[in-house]
Amino acid sequence: MSENNKIGTYKFVAEPFHVDFTGRLTMGVLGNHLLNCAGFHASDRGFGIATLNEDNYTWVLSRLAVELDEMPYQYEDFSIQTWVENVYRLFTDRNFAIIDKEGKKIGYARSVWAMISMNTRKPADLLALHSGSIVDYVCDEPCPIEKPSRIKVASKEPVAVLVAKYSDIDINGHVNSIRYIEHILDLFPIEMYREKRIRRFEMAYVAESYYGDELTLFMDNAGEGVYDVEVKKNGSEVVCRSKVIFTEK
Amino acid sequence: MSENNKIGTYKFVAEPFHVDFTGRLTMGVLGNHLLNCAGFHASDRGFGIATLNEDNYTWVLSRLAVELDEMPYQYEDFSIQTWVENVYRLFTDRNFAIIDKEGKKIGYARSVWAMISMNTRKPADLLALHSGSIVDYVCDEPCPIEKPSRIKVASKEPVAVLVAKYSDIDINGHVNSIRYIEHILDLFPIEMYREKRIRRFEMAYVAESYYGDELTLFMDNAGEGVYDVEVKKNGSEVVCRSKVIFTEK
Repeated sequence: MSENNKIGTYKFVAEPFHVDFTGRLTMGVLGNHLLNCAGFHASDRGFGIATLNEDNYTWVLSRLAVELDEMPYQYEDFSIQTWVENVYRLFTDRNFAIIDKEGKKIGYARSVWAMISMNTRKPADLLALHSGSIVDYVCDEPCPIEKPSRIKVASKEPVAVLVAKYSDIDINGHVNSIRYIEHILDLFPIEMYREKRIRRFEMAYVAESYYGDELTLFMDNAGEGVYDVEVKKNGSEVVCRSKVIFTEK
Repeated sequence: MSENNKIGTYKFVAEPFHVDFTGRLTMGVLGNHLLNCAGFHASDRGFGIATLNEDNYTWVLSRLAVELDEMPYQYEDFSIQTWVENVYRLFTDRNFAIIDKEGKKIGYARSVWAMISMNTRKPADLLALHSGSIVDYVCDEPCPIEKPSRIKVASKEPVAVLVAKYSDIDINGHVNSIRYIEHILDLFPIEMYREKRIRRFEMAYVAESYYGDELTLFMDNAGEGVYDVEVKKNGSEVVCRSKVIFTEK
């Protein structure tokens, strides 16, 4: 298979309600687009969620890391490329490039996915999927950003408490992956976004939360613009962790 | 000008993170799409925000009313048509039809817009815009739903209090029109959406709110599935009002 067919390219425009007060696309919306591209790319190659669902399997996002030189500005065209970097027995690595209107790569992203049984919620063997044909799509396109890191949060003092509401919940009945990004980025005062921009953003999805769950957010300021955030539900169980790295504009 | 060129048609798909737990497109996302279509349609005809901004004018959304038989389901294609129904000196009425994947009209929307001076924030004369050429686009396509109504809320007992955060703020520094929709719909318990659906949704945008503003929400249950909501900022000034009408599924 040619390397070209292994990479999917999808076009977008930075819509007015998808940019923040600085006019730049929000990280939540970029995350949404990345996950949609993952879906388009997988579906077009026969291993999308709809196909998996027929056999009672589904994809679960485990990690996401995004690193950017800049975000598209309001009304600008941009595109996202995605491809599969590795397939292991229980995980697959899917990478992304974010490309500006002039065709320049302005950022990259890495994601880690598991396939789980919808009956048992246990991970399934990716190499057994369609006789292992997913490995035919493995592609050696470079993705020059660090892999998602291990995030640890020491703080026991909550910085925010919120209750999962109607708008937070997706078709699976879980708080949706994008809402966590928004809730985490809302921890920072607007002055932070006025003076700095997010250079790197990481999410580690650990457990699901549900309508009515009380989500408590904890944050460590690790210095030099690095913040580690942990979201717990109902006082104890870790739901997700995030690392946000700000840099000067 | 032919009636056909007066109507703009725009295609969409109901993306996974744009549907709620029932798998139907959320009202916030539909509102976002409607406002984008208004922007596309106006820009393509020379009276979009970018053109207006050159002369220091901008569009301000005053009212929105949406009425639906059903919402598109996850992954379904749908389209939105929009056209100008009336142009008055200080307001223009723009209508919409929401069309399902089979081409059936599943809903309509009405919106009312003013053009304001970006210097004085005062309304400007629409009939003076480009020598009144906006009236060339007035179209008599039917829009068989009621006009936005006058919404009154009597309750003095807040049902929710929230503070406008980073994710709420748009490029103009205001809480964005779509976020109010989400905050208002989050007032209802998830059981409401399980048993009923929104048949009609109205917004009246009265004043802007800003980062850090404390938004207090008040609600009257008018009976028979009708709820009137008022959002005030900092304890007193009305920001917007909404009417939400639920019906059996």
